[in-house]
Amino acid sequence: MFFHVKELQYRAKPAKPDPVYARKLQEVLGGQFGEMSVMMQYLFQGFNCRAEKKYRDMLLDIGTEEIGHVEMLCTMISQLLDGAPADQVDEAAKDPLLAAVMGGMNPQHAIVSGLGAAPTDSNGYPWNSKYIISSGHLLADFRANLNAESQGLLQVVRLYEQTTDPGIRDMLSFMISRDIMHQNQWMAAIAEIEQMDGVIVPASFPRERTVEPATRQFLNFSEGEESAEGAWASGPLPDGTGNFEYVAKPQPMGEAPVLSVPADHQHSVPGTGPYVVNPGVEPLGE
Amino acid sequence: MFFHVKELQYRAKPAKPDPVYARKLQEVLGGQFGEMSVMMQYLFQGFNCRAEKKYRDMLLDIGTEEIGHVEMLCTMISQLLDGAPADQVDEAAKDPLLAAVMGGMNPQHAIVSGLGAAPTDSNGYPWNSKYIISSGHLLADFRANLNAESQGLLQVVRLYEQTTDPGIRDMLSFMISRDIMHQNQWMAAIAEIEQMDGVIVPASFPRERTVEPATRQFLNFSEGEESAEGAWASGPLPDGTGNFEYVAKPQPMGEAPVLSVPADHQHSVPGTGPYVVNPGVEPLGE
Amino acid sequence: MFFHVKELQYRAKPAKPDPVYARKLQEVLGGQFGEMSVMMQYLFQGFNCRAEKKYRDMLLDIGTEEIGHVEMLCTMISQLLDGAPADQVDEAAKDPLLAAVMGGMNPQHAIVSGLGAAPTDSNGYPWNSKYIISSGHLLADFRANLNAESQGLLQVVRLYEQTTDPGIRDMLSFMISRDIMHQNQWMAAIAEIEQMDGVIVPASFPRERTVEPATRQFLNFSEGEESAEGAWASGPLPDGTGNFEYVAKPQPMGEAPVLSVPADHQHSVPGTGPYVVNPGVEPLGE
Amino acid sequence: MFFHVKELQYRAKPAKPDPVYARKLQEVLGGQFGEMSVMMQYLFQGFNCRAEKKYRDMLLDIGTEEIGHVEMLCTMISQLLDGAPADQVDEAAKDPLLAAVMGGMNPQHAIVSGLGAAPTDSNGYPWNSKYIISSGHLLADFRANLNAESQGLLQVVRLYEQTTDPGIRDMLSFMISRDIMHQNQWMAAIAEIEQMDGVIVPASFPRERTVEPATRQFLNFSEGEESAEGAWASGPLPDGTGNFEYVAKPQPMGEAPVLSVPADHQHSVPGTGPYVVNPGVEPLGE
Amino acid sequence: MFFHVKELQYRAKPAKPDPVYARKLQEVLGGQFGEMSVMMQYLFQGFNCRAEKKYRDMLLDIGTEEIGHVEMLCTMISQLLDGAPADQVDEAAKDPLLAAVMGGMNPQHAIVSGLGAAPTDSNGYPWNSKYIISSGHLLADFRANLNAESQGLLQVVRLYEQTTDPGIRDMLSFMISRDIMHQNQWMAAIAEIEQMDGVIVPASFPRERTVEPATRQFLNFSEGEESAEGAWASGPLPDGTGNFEYVAKPQPMGEAPVLSVPADHQHSVPGTGPYVVNPGVEPLGE
Amino acid sequence: MFFHVKELQYRAKPAKPDPVYARKLQEVLGGQFGEMSVMMQYLFQGFNCRAEKKYRDMLLDIGTEEIGHVEMLCTMISQLLDGAPADQVDEAAKDPLLAAVMGGMNPQHAIVSGLGAAPTDSNGYPWNSKYIISSGHLLADFRANLNAESQGLLQVVRLYEQTTDPGIRDMLSFMISRDIMHQNQWMAAIAEIEQMDGVIVPASFPRERTVEPATRQFLNFSEGEESAEGAWASGPLPDGTGNFEYVAKPQPMGEAPVLSVPADHQHSVPGTGPYVVNPGVEPLGE
Repeated sequence: MFFHVKELQYRAKPAKPDPVYARKLQEVLGGQFGEMSVMMQYLFQGFNCRAEKKYRDMLLDIGTEEIGHVEMLCTMISQLLDGAPADQVDEAAKDPLLAAVMGGMNPQHAIVSGLGAAPTDSNGYPWNSKYIISSGHLLADFRANLNAESQGLLQVVRLYEQTTDPGIRDMLSFMISRDIMHQNQWMAAIAEIEQMDGVIVPASFPRERTVEPATRQFLNFSEGEESAEGAWASGPLPDGTGNFEYVAKPQPMGEAPVLSVPADHQHSVPGTGPYVVNPGVEPLGE
Repeated sequence: MFFHVKELQYRAKPAKPDPVYARKLQEVLGGQFGEMSVMMQYLFQGFNCRAEKKYRDMLLDIGTEEIGHVEMLCTMISQLLDGAPADQVDEAAKDPLLAAVMGGMNPQHAIVSGLGAAPTDSNGYPWNSKYIISSGHLLADFRANLNAESQGLLQVVRLYEQTTDPGIRDMLSFMISRDIMHQNQWMAAIAEIEQMDGVIVPASFPRERTVEPATRQFLNFSEGEESAEGAWASGPLPDGTGNFEYVAKPQPMGEAPVLSVPADHQHSVPGTGPYVVNPGVEPLGE
Repeated sequence: MFFHVKELQYRAKPAKPDPVYARKLQEVLGGQFGEMSVMMQYLFQGFNCRAEKKYRDMLLDIGTEEIGHVEMLCTMISQLLDGAPADQVDEAAKDPLLAAVMGGMNPQHAIVSGLGAAPTDSNGYPWNSKYIISSGHLLADFRANLNAESQGLLQVVRLYEQTTDPGIRDMLSFMISRDIMHQNQWMAAIAEIEQMDGVIVPASFPRERTVEPATRQFLNFSEGEESAEGAWASGPLPDGTGNFEYVAKPQPMGEAPVLSVPADHQHSVPGTGPYVVNPGVEPLGE
Repeated sequence: MFFHVKELQYRAKPAKPDPVYARKLQEVLGGQFGEMSVMMQYLFQGFNCRAEKKYRDMLLDIGTEEIGHVEMLCTMISQLLDGAPADQVDEAAKDPLLAAVMGGMNPQHAIVSGLGAAPTDSNGYPWNSKYIISSGHLLADFRANLNAESQGLLQVVRLYEQTTDPGIRDMLSFMISRDIMHQNQWMAAIAEIEQMDGVIVPASFPRERTVEPATRQFLNFSEGEESAEGAWASGPLPDGTGNFEYVAKPQPMGEAPVLSVPADHQHSVPGTGPYVVNPGVEPLGE
Repeated sequence: MFFHVKELQYRAKPAKPDPVYARKLQEVLGGQFGEMSVMMQYLFQGFNCRAEKKYRDMLLDIGTEEIGHVEMLCTMISQLLDGAPADQVDEAAKDPLLAAVMGGMNPQHAIVSGLGAAPTDSNGYPWNSKYIISSGHLLADFRANLNAESQGLLQVVRLYEQTTDPGIRDMLSFMISRDIMHQNQWMAAIAEIEQMDGVIVPASFPRERTVEPATRQFLNFSEGEESAEGAWASGPLPDGTGNFEYVAKPQPMGEAPVLSVPADHQHSVPGTGPYVVNPGVEPLGE
Repeated sequence: MFFHVKELQYRAKPAKPDPVYARKLQEVLGGQFGEMSVMMQYLFQGFNCRAEKKYRDMLLDIGTEEIGHVEMLCTMISQLLDGAPADQVDEAAKDPLLAAVMGGMNPQHAIVSGLGAAPTDSNGYPWNSKYIISSGHLLADFRANLNAESQGLLQVVRLYEQTTDPGIRDMLSFMISRDIMHQNQWMAAIAEIEQMDGVIVPASFPRERTVEPATRQFLNFSEGEESAEGAWASGPLPDGTGNFEYVAKPQPMGEAPVLSVPADHQHSVPGTGPYVVNPGVEPLGE
């Protein structure tokens, strides 16, 4: 069960409206790695959590915080849209600034959402739940979370560079700070689990059922061998089972597939017919 | 530019058809973390790569391998669909096995794809490119890749448990092996970059522009304090800037937002009107 | 079965082309509450109607009218796109008007649809059938219809403010008029059903199976009590079963959930393994 | 800013697992009118609210409650999935009950979500934000809300009929009760606004700019006249501006459209070419 | 403008209900190549048509017919759903027929659409407008139409094989007949345009601007040369410009790409920072 | 199995950056008929191919080539994005060229993809696998392929007109050339199959089961008869079974549908209730 307090977690007030930036800021609200994604990802992981209590509690703590981040972004976007023009192109032509605004803003802000934030990304593409993952496996999901916070922070920093409005930057600096904390958080949580289980997800599959060489070979599926220079091509495997091996010319281990002819009821075999596989009764007639 | 060889990278031949399992196996072909996802993710990261050559080459090597994994899964699924029934429910009722098959298989395998693999997940939901990420930042993307290989391997292991067909398991054991290798690979690559740049993505944002306490505080947005027990709530921060701090009762740092009244041209203000903000010419009349 | 007459239901001719406005007008053609939505919503409700004949007939009358509205909007958009520029940015730089046009128009109008209307919204997002509802329950669906006509009319009025072209406004004034009529229509139809069934959808669920206090309590899930001031917090319930009750501090009625540990075949339990739940035959070997 | 308490708003514990019902229950979690939809709809309407404080507070109170409903449904679904089988079809054939379970459950529950709730509907289709509306217009949005609660309650009642598990029914009876309350709530709120503004959304568009007869005519776009019998075809208009009028044989008011020939740069005119409209420099040559 | 007549274009009455088949039949209603697709495709091509009148009229004639096909399929599906069970799995276990029905039917038919047709495919995936094409080029679009009628007819024939219900087969035989006619129709229309314009779409691009050899070479991007045996590898080109040429070992004509380093404002360059490219004012401070 | 060579199939280097054109070019990379579509369509058709070897080989040859086209387009787009501005609107106002750039470019190129190509169309809509078809029927699929190459080439020609950059045009001229070849290829392959099977897909359905007149009648569902003038309304049927017939006034062959009343468990019958069809145990109580 949840409660709301009216104050925002942090200030969210731009120095002045900027409808074009409002469109851009949508990316970190309703985009693939926006706040809606981490909010829903952590809440679902928490609600579904079958592990010991501290994990469930932690997931719901951070999921609950993220609802407040969605709130901050919506508040900011609404204010950036204050005073968005409703005029037409001819007028814009006379004022290049207005022209830029009208060309660059999201038309749905003025037609659909009443100058409010939309649950979409910067191109108006709706948020959808395939952005999130809740697999029931703590280590797998903490890696998903670290990834989400890494992509998200990167996008916020890029957006920070695209404005100099001190109010927007103030809020972004807080969001950047929380994302730094959250990257730290997931790294610490990952280390905790890896210490118990090892680094492979899932750890529980028996190694004797693998095709062993394939667990350590880097396969060079291209002409040159520049890829041999990386830490992924030689030296110790992070899972401690041996060393990487570089295979310069990988060979197929399977055969060329030969599929059987299509079933007759698929009506896909050239040069056959006419026929009905499943004759049934006679047609009713016209 | 790419070339094809006719042999499969590994064997992909079931002991016998199983249309219900064909539906399930679609998940790791065209689902969120299926082979289509890693194939397209690595290819796009490689094509867009602006870093030194070994990264681009490595990304395209593994992306090219994954095209071959898509090929193996399609081949397997087509063979699992051999002999899928085309009959009707009445008949099924007499044979519970057939009933289970008909209830559990994907109807589109028999109507749309001609008993071939479909580019969708196990519920027939189409693959889409929002599953993948190519951000231009190596560390961010390698974390996305480690996540994809972790989720993907977890799903393959779960699918391994859901069949005892030795041919399917043979292929899955190879795919499991490659996913183990790929988890190793991304962990090695991540370590290489983190050594240079530190662990926060992106490393380049100046810390003095952050809200410093927010970069290390775990905020307990719930009643109990079970979340205080984890490595994320005390002890050293993975980024080396200090220690986690547990805030048991977080306070808002912002104010309650007060949005200004809607612009008149939005026609959203209760109790106003009738009016037209932008009068223009008179209406044409009827 | 349907027939077409060549004349439009109403005039749809702009005074002059305006490719940027063409993009905006797409919202009420192929957006969430555009004409494609009401057309398909009414047709499906009509085709599926199991109630007495007058409802089916009425639904198909209005659904058929809406096909004609789609026709009018397509016609208008095609004409707004007449003369859209195909040039490049350098040229645009010299003419701010052209720059605004090129920045603000939908590139797919010039690349994909051949300067014709597209079945999408103003951001190029495709229409999809999750926009519509046909539940088989007349009152539920008439409320969906009243909502669709309310949102749709609001958007058309906003678009009316964003142009002064007399031809566009002429057509919009007709569409506004029909939407006013359709709001009237659904309100009358709703009243007719509510008189028979009461106001709750569905009326047929027995009240003694409800948790009675929960049917009338407004729960204040926030710190302040501003929400106590509305008609929803005190006074008579519209369904006539008593009065609203304001609960200032709602208490949980359930317990904290404790989920059981994951099934072994999910491979999600930390610190276990290696194992295979479903052993099957030995692996084939390499 | 938000806080979480660990107890559920209401009990959510099934008498016994039922993986097939878990799939069905997903509809009211992540479907078009599931709890995710009302949660996000009310939160966005609240965050974007520019009206007086009581509306914002009320919207966020109910939005916050709905987060707790998502929590209850996830909890229920996880428990319904306890003990879901991971076996294969041959085994199922011997036990018709197991066959029904395996045919009817969502394969992603066992492959993707680790026997946890998924943010999707009963067919595995992901929730997306086009399900929700936040227009900035109170009356329009309250109608959207009344519709959502009507469709949602109808679906919950149908689901109630599809199980006799007393634990599931206990939880559903609470959700039914809250939906009854919420229908009451939106009706009361709607009445409050309609009293001020009249019943048409938006009220602010001047009637003299409409095509007046079109605001009251029911147009019979079909052969028979059954549709004349309803309250929408005669009698007073709900907006108080006069009476409905039934037009038995509607006539077109527009002309047959004649579109101009396509622009040359579209390369769509039959029988023309070869040419390049925008010649530019000579091609580079091979 | 459109009119409706109450009679169906053809009979649509099953001999008895069959909820599992209802799910399957959804494919040709709301699937990629279902009747909704051809209906919307022809209507949009007609509404946007800038060519001479006979094309527009023809497109709207067939588009109008297809609305009636959607009507027939909805009618059929509603009747197939008559009597669908609403019970629970335990009961089903006792009756294998019922178990098959409950495992195989679409749960949304019983929860969402009130036992009516849904605007989705056989897996419950919603119809969307990316299924259709209206490019403004007659020949391109007639090829799209021939493709749609070919895929659609193939699917209907497959569905015909999956039932023996004489009522369903009666309706399907009519739909098969119309699809045969429509394949004929588009082939005739294609021939008419090709005679004027030649076979390449678009004909208007000047051949001297092409890379000539590339217009006739089949490139063998694989090891073997089985692909040399087809009509596409030797013999005359259908466009009459010469003969196919088989290139057994295609060589790259471009260079290995070298992308420049990322822009600093992207924060993607390893080993750099900390910095802000766009410094702006000082941060507000905490 | 696949291999990569580092050189591009053809040059892909613009004369200078152009972020607005980068957005447009996305259409033929990740749009409905972009290179991702043909790549995936040919690969899936090849992987699923059950026909003789030359078809499978040919499909995989061309599918493999198309991976290289995706590579070329990504390379081009990345270079067009070099030097994209990261500044804010105020600055843009001073320079109309920059304003046009900022209004017209895709914000996600600067926020999400790090100035790299995105797997989306020109409006940022993600590529999805419903764009492709693999039906298992050679003739049906070759028609899909001819359509894809026709729509794709048309779009590339339109894009050619929208730039004069010699580097972009050089690459486009190669892509145009390959599309011309591929149209030729599919026409040749279609002719080969049609000679064996006739022109109707599928040829195998028995004509005596059709409603014969419906296989040759053009039905004029509109007032005028302009549609009688085309090759589709009179003259020989392409399938050789007779002549087209023009039906000026088509008559319904079915009856007006009358659906039965809804099942009680749907709770959709007005004026009934309260009741529970499936009573089960008593509710738990509050």
